[in-house]
Amino acid sequence: MSTTENELRVGMVGYAFMGAAHSQAWRTVNRVYDLPARARMVAVCGRDAGKVAEAADRLGWEEHTTDWRELVNRPDIDIVDICTPGDSHAEIALAALAAGKHVLCEKPLANTVAEAREMAAAAATARAGGALSMCGFNYRRVPAVALMRQLVADGRLGEIRHVRASYLQDWIVDPQFPLVWRLRKEVSGSGALGDIGAHIIDLTQYVTGQQITGVSAVTETFVKERPLPTESSGLAAQADGATATGPVTVDDAAVFVARLDGGALGTYEATRFATGRKNALRVEINGSLGTLAFDLERLNELEYYDATRPVAEQGFSRILVTESEHPYLSAWWPPGHIIGYEHSFTHQMRDFIEAVATGADPSPSFAEALQVQLVLDAVVQSAELGSSWTKVEPALTAVTAA
Amino acid sequence: MSTTENELRVGMVGYAFMGAAHSQAWRTVNRVYDLPARARMVAVCGRDAGKVAEAADRLGWEEHTTDWRELVNRPDIDIVDICTPGDSHAEIALAALAAGKHVLCEKPLANTVAEAREMAAAAATARAGGALSMCGFNYRRVPAVALMRQLVADGRLGEIRHVRASYLQDWIVDPQFPLVWRLRKEVSGSGALGDIGAHIIDLTQYVTGQQITGVSAVTETFVKERPLPTESSGLAAQADGATATGPVTVDDAAVFVARLDGGALGTYEATRFATGRKNALRVEINGSLGTLAFDLERLNELEYYDATRPVAEQGFSRILVTESEHPYLSAWWPPGHIIGYEHSFTHQMRDFIEAVATGADPSPSFAEALQVQLVLDAVVQSAELGSSWTKVEPALTAVTAA
Amino acid sequence: MSTTENELRVGMVGYAFMGAAHSQAWRTVNRVYDLPARARMVAVCGRDAGKVAEAADRLGWEEHTTDWRELVNRPDIDIVDICTPGDSHAEIALAALAAGKHVLCEKPLANTVAEAREMAAAAATARAGGALSMCGFNYRRVPAVALMRQLVADGRLGEIRHVRASYLQDWIVDPQFPLVWRLRKEVSGSGALGDIGAHIIDLTQYVTGQQITGVSAVTETFVKERPLPTESSGLAAQADGATATGPVTVDDAAVFVARLDGGALGTYEATRFATGRKNALRVEINGSLGTLAFDLERLNELEYYDATRPVAEQGFSRILVTESEHPYLSAWWPPGHIIGYEHSFTHQMRDFIEAVATGADPSPSFAEALQVQLVLDAVVQSAELGSSWTKVEPALTAVTAA
Amino acid sequence: MSTTENELRVGMVGYAFMGAAHSQAWRTVNRVYDLPARARMVAVCGRDAGKVAEAADRLGWEEHTTDWRELVNRPDIDIVDICTPGDSHAEIALAALAAGKHVLCEKPLANTVAEAREMAAAAATARAGGALSMCGFNYRRVPAVALMRQLVADGRLGEIRHVRASYLQDWIVDPQFPLVWRLRKEVSGSGALGDIGAHIIDLTQYVTGQQITGVSAVTETFVKERPLPTESSGLAAQADGATATGPVTVDDAAVFVARLDGGALGTYEATRFATGRKNALRVEINGSLGTLAFDLERLNELEYYDATRPVAEQGFSRILVTESEHPYLSAWWPPGHIIGYEHSFTHQMRDFIEAVATGADPSPSFAEALQVQLVLDAVVQSAELGSSWTKVEPALTAVTAA
Repeated sequence: MSTTENELRVGMVGYAFMGAAHSQAWRTVNRVYDLPARARMVAVCGRDAGKVAEAADRLGWEEHTTDWRELVNRPDIDIVDICTPGDSHAEIALAALAAGKHVLCEKPLANTVAEAREMAAAAATARAGGALSMCGFNYRRVPAVALMRQLVADGRLGEIRHVRASYLQDWIVDPQFPLVWRLRKEVSGSGALGDIGAHIIDLTQYVTGQQITGVSAVTETFVKERPLPTESSGLAAQADGATATGPVTVDDAAVFVARLDGGALGTYEATRFATGRKNALRVEINGSLGTLAFDLERLNELEYYDATRPVAEQGFSRILVTESEHPYLSAWWPPGHIIGYEHSFTHQMRDFIEAVATGADPSPSFAEALQVQLVLDAVVQSAELGSSWTKVEPALTAVTAA
Repeated sequence: MSTTENELRVGMVGYAFMGAAHSQAWRTVNRVYDLPARARMVAVCGRDAGKVAEAADRLGWEEHTTDWRELVNRPDIDIVDICTPGDSHAEIALAALAAGKHVLCEKPLANTVAEAREMAAAAATARAGGALSMCGFNYRRVPAVALMRQLVADGRLGEIRHVRASYLQDWIVDPQFPLVWRLRKEVSGSGALGDIGAHIIDLTQYVTGQQITGVSAVTETFVKERPLPTESSGLAAQADGATATGPVTVDDAAVFVARLDGGALGTYEATRFATGRKNALRVEINGSLGTLAFDLERLNELEYYDATRPVAEQGFSRILVTESEHPYLSAWWPPGHIIGYEHSFTHQMRDFIEAVATGADPSPSFAEALQVQLVLDAVVQSAELGSSWTKVEPALTAVTAA
Repeated sequence: MSTTENELRVGMVGYAFMGAAHSQAWRTVNRVYDLPARARMVAVCGRDAGKVAEAADRLGWEEHTTDWRELVNRPDIDIVDICTPGDSHAEIALAALAAGKHVLCEKPLANTVAEAREMAAAAATARAGGALSMCGFNYRRVPAVALMRQLVADGRLGEIRHVRASYLQDWIVDPQFPLVWRLRKEVSGSGALGDIGAHIIDLTQYVTGQQITGVSAVTETFVKERPLPTESSGLAAQADGATATGPVTVDDAAVFVARLDGGALGTYEATRFATGRKNALRVEINGSLGTLAFDLERLNELEYYDATRPVAEQGFSRILVTESEHPYLSAWWPPGHIIGYEHSFTHQMRDFIEAVATGADPSPSFAEALQVQLVLDAVVQSAELGSSWTKVEPALTAVTAA
Repeated sequence: MSTTENELRVGMVGYAFMGAAHSQAWRTVNRVYDLPARARMVAVCGRDAGKVAEAADRLGWEEHTTDWRELVNRPDIDIVDICTPGDSHAEIALAALAAGKHVLCEKPLANTVAEAREMAAAAATARAGGALSMCGFNYRRVPAVALMRQLVADGRLGEIRHVRASYLQDWIVDPQFPLVWRLRKEVSGSGALGDIGAHIIDLTQYVTGQQITGVSAVTETFVKERPLPTESSGLAAQADGATATGPVTVDDAAVFVARLDGGALGTYEATRFATGRKNALRVEINGSLGTLAFDLERLNELEYYDATRPVAEQGFSRILVTESEHPYLSAWWPPGHIIGYEHSFTHQMRDFIEAVATGADPSPSFAEALQVQLVLDAVVQSAELGSSWTKVEPALTAVTAA
């Protein structure tokens, strides 16, 4: 790789919602953190020449292109950042890994287990050649989530009994909301399940250090036909004025019960029909010694119940996770000056840059992301088989297979 | 019945936690509400002569006895109030109904579907003779819950998509907590499922006006052996200092996914292992037009999201349910002066007295309580059958059968 | 006094809002607490013969009368409970004390310092003869408030720096709300200041163990003329349909800054114009080692920030004050089963009965209540003198003077 | 001015806490908003050559200098952004305005009224020549605050009765926290009063559209002597290990009661001794038709009580201010994806750039900031004069005088 000393040259594919979030992070990370290498925003790639040129100018990329194959093969690119919909992750990632690039790929890793397995295998192979890879489960880098992880790892919860996770949104409650790509299986792979359910699967496994071993699931598509879209941006979209409609081919909601390998019982719910819940990723972990609870809509806060305190003083402590003692925060503002959603990406870039610069393995790896995919797959299977208990293929096997 | 004019003479069986709560309600209801009849606390029954005498004196019952058969057959008793553990409900209720008494029976109605079915049949028969019966799902009478019901019935939520219910407690997290009667199947029928899961089943069906048609479930007993108890009171207990232990024969936690007959998808969780959650009965209902959310630990509050408001003003309104316009509250204190847990029982007695005095059918009837029992039964079956989808026997069939 | 053994015979004057709350407490206290003596609700007194008869029947008093002088002189009355508006407190209390009765008097103790001083002196004199007296600052007996007191007394807050107290209501925001007695100085003495401001003065002094030494104040009457009332109940009332109006002669709001004798700086606000705040008595105490915060609308909760915990775990703990380890609560329900406003009165009666039965001095004494009156007086003076700093006459002097 | 077309060339003085926040905003604003001109980060100025070079590199400024006079006179600079402590604001701003630069000056505008008056006069003069100026009360640009302003301006609160504002921090509770520049009057002008009290004065006046006409105040310095500092950053600092100490010459806390010209009564409190409150800028506005409440620690939320709704549905709505319909938010993330503290600066830069590009007057102007200074001055005077009521010099007079 042609890394200019202390510079990591990034090429990004895709420039929509995720592309904007990643750009903000790449722009900011060098300005806030003192890192062994600095990211340089070399080029962005998109299908529409005019739009990608506009995006490059607005988001701060030096160059732009419509040819992702050219991008991932440029000798002056060190990192390929994949921000496209899930149906193109595998192809781009495999090419980038083959070209010896470090790869950061948005979640879910792929739309199918087969693709994810191939990617994990390729990542393992590329690792031998020095190329690193990471999947963008950015919420691991929310400081409160990282603090949860620390507290659990320190044994503060004792034996974990319950995991209670939901990711509630409401952006398609209106039956007239159009049939955007996220509602079409051929592009997105699945609906709420893969889009937001994947986040809570990864997050709870990360925090608890336990893996889901089996599930019983139900999925539902409440609105089965929707108007075709004219344009969309982020999660917003306009419907075609005409009467043309198309079938929704993904789940609107997915709920499942799970068992984790450390003995915990888990409940999971991902839905886009929870009216009033905008981005309510909520996780609660009950252990024999305490409980942790988190809500992404209040991402600077963590609730911690410490059952080892004197009984008369026990209560849920709302920790404002903005102290310099908290993960990622020494670089930001004074206590109580809160951060936002986008900071999780800046933290992700920080860790990825550090890993690349030092040769350490970033996490979540493609193998870890494959394991999430296996859980998603088990959910789909269980839902198809009358909710009957369905084992998740063990991650080790999966990785070994790769 | 020998009802003194405008007086309803009550005999209560059991005087522990539920007996104390019912006594407080019987004592208070006449003092707060202007009713067509007044309750008179005639006699209380318990197995231990000394303890029941002490309880009668303390709780304010005129007489006491150790013979419940005598009590339910006394000609001067109008209402029999059953506050014993579930294993004796059926026998006492059947005898009381046979004696022509009005019967108020604590939940769950019985420990088995067979018993519940017999009770519902007997209630239907007794009804012809003028005796009324009701099951004590007291949380229906929390004003915020009654307000939820009103708002849903008024169509304010539109089409209901999601029901999200949990009842979380933590009083047996400690493995040294003793093996009280609530942990022994032969007395309690089931564990968290029947004790607190029954509440959320009834409450969500009541609020939505929908019935659960099928479930997929998992149950778990985290601590399988516990020390034998020496004494217990309410939910507190002391363990025997000796090393004697016994097996826990009920579930510590039960989680299930459900479908309701109006199209809603439901998630349910009942557990006694949610550290820090003391009495967290939480229900959220998402509809196409809005959402309602309730937490029993803050029972004077109801959260309401009205999606028909202007977008920039939408939000979860924390309604402090203490206005005289709210259900049950015109008799209590000025706005903002909150009420407590016990008031739900006072409201229950108010409605039961009014029903008895006017000859109206109180709700929940034994038939409704039987339907809850059928759901509990489906949960147990599904859990035993690898979580496979299990239909709930329709309530109408159940009632007809009776 | 003709105390039947283990029985304390109560006569109550007044039967409106406070009378109903006290009755509920007298009815309940013997049933919940195991006390050295039991209260017996002998007689209630009111001006309207028909209404007081109805009240006696409804609230559970054995007898009724329209002659308070007769009541306070009955040899078979042990305790006189004064629930009338403030303008009659002094006359009734002085007579009752002269008759050797124990006296429980609602707050504020009186409408003027002169009256309060006379009452405190009489109480001191009566004490010598064995008659005890207490002023009804019931919020001291909210368990969370008692817990605050304990934590401060145990030194958990360190040196107290700030007291931040407000009591916000909104029942007269509407200019058409009628001119009830609480808005007429000749009956009520003052407006928000004496009615609810007195509560936060007493509560913060009690919790901190510090006394207010000086104040700077502003008062305001936003609506200066109101329609005359036809009838009222609690804080609700109907206006006369006719056009007759009268002047509001009390403050709608009173705000003041205070210094406390232990070095704390205090801010106080009492208002009936805080739209949406129904009964928001809020107190926050900041000390060098921690902070406590309380809100009466969530009276079962106490927020405690312990600054001696590890920095990364510090946060406001929401203590659900429902454990048997918490003040007053071992007699009530299991953890998480919340109590309400009225329970503060039951706890007050418990402590008063215990004091009377054991001959201990109940608190707050009339002398303590006089000191609150002196603070109220200083507030009025400061407001009249352009908010200039006004010293509060020291309580010891006041007591000695009496 | 030598503005490159569509480019505004910025020179910033100071690079500490505020400098870092402003840099983040200047870097980001062009990337998120579509503006008539783009900011270019030309040069940063600081006293220490090495540190400013490091800061320029880290924060993304093209050049750096130690000579602010040179900077503000460079012909290729369009905007001077002043981020130094208050004692140098006047000198730098006056020079920049004299040089015809647009000036953005951090708050408080100056350390004295005299300086502020001179600055406002200079700004008025410079305005005639086309140079614009603005004071950095950035919290006006928090979306929830801007929404408050809109709702009040739309008459949704009716007649405003109460303003309740506090800004609570706790970073100097420890008596060993060193004597940083913010605690020395000669540099900072005042303590909590000017640093954070100024924010709540500006914010409440902005939101209500009312100005403070008079105040009664108390200030306090709890810890009068502190160790000398070795180094500081943001609000954090280390004390000298040696025993050298110095006197604290500013207030630790300032509390005051105010009247606003529209008839509202206000309470204000600014303190650095509210243990556990990290950045708790809280404002509540009570009007005859509703209430708004805001807390900067949850800056994405606004609580709105609409008293015109049906009584049974009234409650405080927690509006998650993240919709594209909300101020500033259409450029950011999907609903529920929250933003942070730093975004208020990005929004500020957006508005300032737009004003400069279109020749509109930005707000708050120096004249508005002078009026805040006059309020601060009245607070200091009242505190010195035994809290006696002190009128605020009318803003119009102040501006005219300038």
